[in-house]
Amino acid sequence: MLRYAFFGPVGTFSEAALRTVVGDAPAVPVTSVDATIEAVRTGAADVGCVPIENSVEGGVPATLDGLAVGDPLVVVAEVVIPVSFVLAARPGVGLADITRVSTHSHAYAQVRRWLHTNLPGAAYVPATSTAASAQALADELAGGEPAGFEGAICAPFAARTHGLDVLAEAIEDRAGAQTRFVLLSRPGVVPEPTGDDKTSLVVFLREERPGALVEALEQFVTRGINLTRIESRPAGDALGRYCFSIDCDGHVSDARVGEALMGLHRVCEKVRFVGSYPRADGGRTVTGTGPTEDDFVAAQGWLDGLRAGSAS
Amino acid sequence: MLRYAFFGPVGTFSEAALRTVVGDAPAVPVTSVDATIEAVRTGAADVGCVPIENSVEGGVPATLDGLAVGDPLVVVAEVVIPVSFVLAARPGVGLADITRVSTHSHAYAQVRRWLHTNLPGAAYVPATSTAASAQALADELAGGEPAGFEGAICAPFAARTHGLDVLAEAIEDRAGAQTRFVLLSRPGVVPEPTGDDKTSLVVFLREERPGALVEALEQFVTRGINLTRIESRPAGDALGRYCFSIDCDGHVSDARVGEALMGLHRVCEKVRFVGSYPRADGGRTVTGTGPTEDDFVAAQGWLDGLRAGSAS
Amino acid sequence: MLRYAFFGPVGTFSEAALRTVVGDAPAVPVTSVDATIEAVRTGAADVGCVPIENSVEGGVPATLDGLAVGDPLVVVAEVVIPVSFVLAARPGVGLADITRVSTHSHAYAQVRRWLHTNLPGAAYVPATSTAASAQALADELAGGEPAGFEGAICAPFAARTHGLDVLAEAIEDRAGAQTRFVLLSRPGVVPEPTGDDKTSLVVFLREERPGALVEALEQFVTRGINLTRIESRPAGDALGRYCFSIDCDGHVSDARVGEALMGLHRVCEKVRFVGSYPRADGGRTVTGTGPTEDDFVAAQGWLDGLRAGSAS
Amino acid sequence: MLRYAFFGPVGTFSEAALRTVVGDAPAVPVTSVDATIEAVRTGAADVGCVPIENSVEGGVPATLDGLAVGDPLVVVAEVVIPVSFVLAARPGVGLADITRVSTHSHAYAQVRRWLHTNLPGAAYVPATSTAASAQALADELAGGEPAGFEGAICAPFAARTHGLDVLAEAIEDRAGAQTRFVLLSRPGVVPEPTGDDKTSLVVFLREERPGALVEALEQFVTRGINLTRIESRPAGDALGRYCFSIDCDGHVSDARVGEALMGLHRVCEKVRFVGSYPRADGGRTVTGTGPTEDDFVAAQGWLDGLRAGSAS
Repeated sequence: MLRYAFFGPVGTFSEAALRTVVGDAPAVPVTSVDATIEAVRTGAADVGCVPIENSVEGGVPATLDGLAVGDPLVVVAEVVIPVSFVLAARPGVGLADITRVSTHSHAYAQVRRWLHTNLPGAAYVPATSTAASAQALADELAGGEPAGFEGAICAPFAARTHGLDVLAEAIEDRAGAQTRFVLLSRPGVVPEPTGDDKTSLVVFLREERPGALVEALEQFVTRGINLTRIESRPAGDALGRYCFSIDCDGHVSDARVGEALMGLHRVCEKVRFVGSYPRADGGRTVTGTGPTEDDFVAAQGWLDGLRAGSAS
Repeated sequence: MLRYAFFGPVGTFSEAALRTVVGDAPAVPVTSVDATIEAVRTGAADVGCVPIENSVEGGVPATLDGLAVGDPLVVVAEVVIPVSFVLAARPGVGLADITRVSTHSHAYAQVRRWLHTNLPGAAYVPATSTAASAQALADELAGGEPAGFEGAICAPFAARTHGLDVLAEAIEDRAGAQTRFVLLSRPGVVPEPTGDDKTSLVVFLREERPGALVEALEQFVTRGINLTRIESRPAGDALGRYCFSIDCDGHVSDARVGEALMGLHRVCEKVRFVGSYPRADGGRTVTGTGPTEDDFVAAQGWLDGLRAGSAS
Repeated sequence: MLRYAFFGPVGTFSEAALRTVVGDAPAVPVTSVDATIEAVRTGAADVGCVPIENSVEGGVPATLDGLAVGDPLVVVAEVVIPVSFVLAARPGVGLADITRVSTHSHAYAQVRRWLHTNLPGAAYVPATSTAASAQALADELAGGEPAGFEGAICAPFAARTHGLDVLAEAIEDRAGAQTRFVLLSRPGVVPEPTGDDKTSLVVFLREERPGALVEALEQFVTRGINLTRIESRPAGDALGRYCFSIDCDGHVSDARVGEALMGLHRVCEKVRFVGSYPRADGGRTVTGTGPTEDDFVAAQGWLDGLRAGSAS
Repeated sequence: MLRYAFFGPVGTFSEAALRTVVGDAPAVPVTSVDATIEAVRTGAADVGCVPIENSVEGGVPATLDGLAVGDPLVVVAEVVIPVSFVLAARPGVGLADITRVSTHSHAYAQVRRWLHTNLPGAAYVPATSTAASAQALADELAGGEPAGFEGAICAPFAARTHGLDVLAEAIEDRAGAQTRFVLLSRPGVVPEPTGDDKTSLVVFLREERPGALVEALEQFVTRGINLTRIESRPAGDALGRYCFSIDCDGHVSDARVGEALMGLHRVCEKVRFVGSYPRADGGRTVTGTGPTEDDFVAAQGWLDGLRAGSAS
């Protein structure tokens, strides 16, 4: 039986994401994204669930960097869930009682306008996760130490889990925000292609010069492959050196993707394959006006014929 | 006299960066990157200093997004400073007394290994900035509330400012880290070209299709312009839509840069100019084997002649 | 009054082409394409008409090379005429009497199949032009030397001019062939743009390396300019060195064309401008999905604003 | 035993080229390039030798078009020979006696300046080949019909073969001219790679639009393949439709060439493979700074590993 881990504590969006895949299977909360990734690397867990990208805040550095360096890991599934926040408090506490609110800084960034309007005088107390703020209130409720704040901004899932009251729902400033989570695993078996897959890579360019990035991206364009995400990350200790975290349409077993990967392998300093997996982001695989998989197969048959001496 | 603001509180790296430019001029701390940017927009300040990029952690979302949307602002200067952390405590507190350490989560990410080795049992208490953790200890020292932790991880500058002892220096896991800060202003006058400048842009692609990003980047490659930074940021509420924050070599008054900007203006949905300013990142302007500014001038003279009917 | 010259003798397709522009104006036949071009260079003529391209045989080397090297000349007009051949003979001579046919080798190439079917035993006698073969029969008819053949393959226009009988019409193997002629002049005034123009260039690449040609062609693609013709020509004495004779949509006074020319000037060893002139080839100016001239004007206005310090 | 044919008559440069490969083997002269190509198609000959490109005059249309349409043929070898002309005459005839000179129009184009200087009053009599003009003089010498001219401009080889005197040597206007000949065959076996090979193609673009040619050429650039020749040819009956005759470095059995061919097959309307053969043009295979064959092999191995689930 696979052992699951997620970026905890209990009640995080990461747990909610993992639950959409594994249901009630036993799963262990880990205290940070880094530690979740490490748990998979060491074998303490077989699959770890961490956030990789938020539609408002952008990429999650710890996840992107964890996939870019260290022992290789691969994404075996993605989960996209809507991100909506509630203001939770201990039963009996009302909006007027709240002078301090706590949450993770990413969540705080997404509810600033609501707070400015509805709790203009409230102080902000940073927390290590949205769930941690809910848990602190729950601990206080259970007779533990004072949390140091009255309001927790967290997932509805977390308020429920911890027995807190919800004072306000859907308090996020931009409706419709989503977070994409990935389930990571040690390399082994690539998930079967489903016809609607994505492939993730990390690309380190060979040189810093005009055109090096374009030369790499041409490997996709030339083969009609759509990029769904590209994000630069610092590649080292100095400013100005980047690697690129890239998602593209298609599966490593597709001819077009295989050929693009080989092309990158030849022109880049390093390419790290980070997995092919069924897409779950609501997007559709785009091939534009480019060649289809059938065209790739036909071209291979044609070439095989030429090499055997047949007419063109 | 210009009014300066920085991402505070007093003692932040942002203040240290601003001081390298304005010395002891009066400058006001603002509680967040967003609020600093807003202070410049509203005219409460004329120039604001905020971090934009760290060599380990990558781009600073609040700054990148603040420049991408809302009323236009431009970068008028950049400052790069080495990032080094100290472990600071109230006088009389020793390493063995520390059970809880506090700092901003970005700083925490950069000293994890040191903490794991030297303070394996210490709990982490998030703070809104590195300077805030130092200030909390200073407040406690001055007879205020207990900070809730014994150790603050902050800039050497902040420990000094707040009269704290330094228990350990240079505790960052990767030596040589740097943060780049920008001084923002409302549009008005573009700084004069110095011969070694950078230009910042935000580019919104017109379509989601294979090749749209390459088509935009070709505008730089075709003119031999080096990109020094490219970073994707979410462009809206849904996953999969990005804008690109780009820095390139050169000044908007350079022929090559002007032409590339016009090219982008034609092929992109929107291009936002975010300033041309002297580079201070230790890099050199790279023109590769491409044409020089003289070549651009010569080409313009040649074209003018052709249009007037002269021989080719 | 302008002095006109054409690739003669009297009765050539070149004369027919010139007549569509200048009517009955006096015009001097010149014995070769080279000599016609030279007559314009020296000032013996102001305008010379020569063939540049045939839809079956391809480019006319003497014209392409005459425009690529030597003192600069420019195209001021183009004329496209259908190419149809007749078999002409002295009055009284029938098809059965013909044992030898004469024409220019390019014309011969276009009627081979007809000859094979209708005059299978006839020998081929090369001539310096199609009109020369008609003239030789006319000379014999007028009591001069024997022509050395009985049948001339020439333009209907030439048979008429020389009082010959037409034994067969439209004998070309491929119906619909066309030849494009150009009127050449010394540089001076560029014809006004008409909204449907072409621009001709000769491009010498800087280096022999993968990508040099693509880099040059990108100057057109990046600006959405359609190429209507590209033809390589030997650039020197050794095999493997080429220059490229290129026609593109648009006029040198168009922003997009001017910018592309400047781009080529910067990345190529040499670019020779060979004229902008109204298109007469039946094609339409194609701008694809690329930017329009209005987009170029808007981009220039935007850039001017940026440089003056206005908001983006 | 293979049956050889060449573009005749006896004494042409084509025969000289063929002899460098097959020595004194029996070989049949054929009256035109077209007929030589047809002889190979029908099986009347197994190998035909025809000129394809001259360093001064450019491509030979009959050969280029013969390879582009009709039943497929492939190049199995290339021969490059220096092109030098002599002025030949019957024994006893001196320079002062020459009032008419005869040769093929391509040869005539290459000696015009010499004739202008040394035989300014001489008339030009076109011939079907350089060797035909020598043969006509030889026939006259042997008591046949008068040739109709006194001087033949031909290869030294032809003057020798026909027992003529050489009145002047190396009369070509540009020293160092070369012609490249190809040996054609029906498809069957591709010559083994030698490590220094060329591959010939004919490419028909799918659409007439900005960028279609660049898109095709990118297939070479992306894989670091050097083009040694590119020549446009009319693709049909109307002006403005072209196909491209292309030579590139490398052999169809090379991974990089195979991949580029497949890429072209996918993005073009039609690609015709015209052979891989040892290069003999004095050029060197150029891989620029691009990937090597080893890089292609390594990339394939890496991809195979990924698909089998191994670490990246």
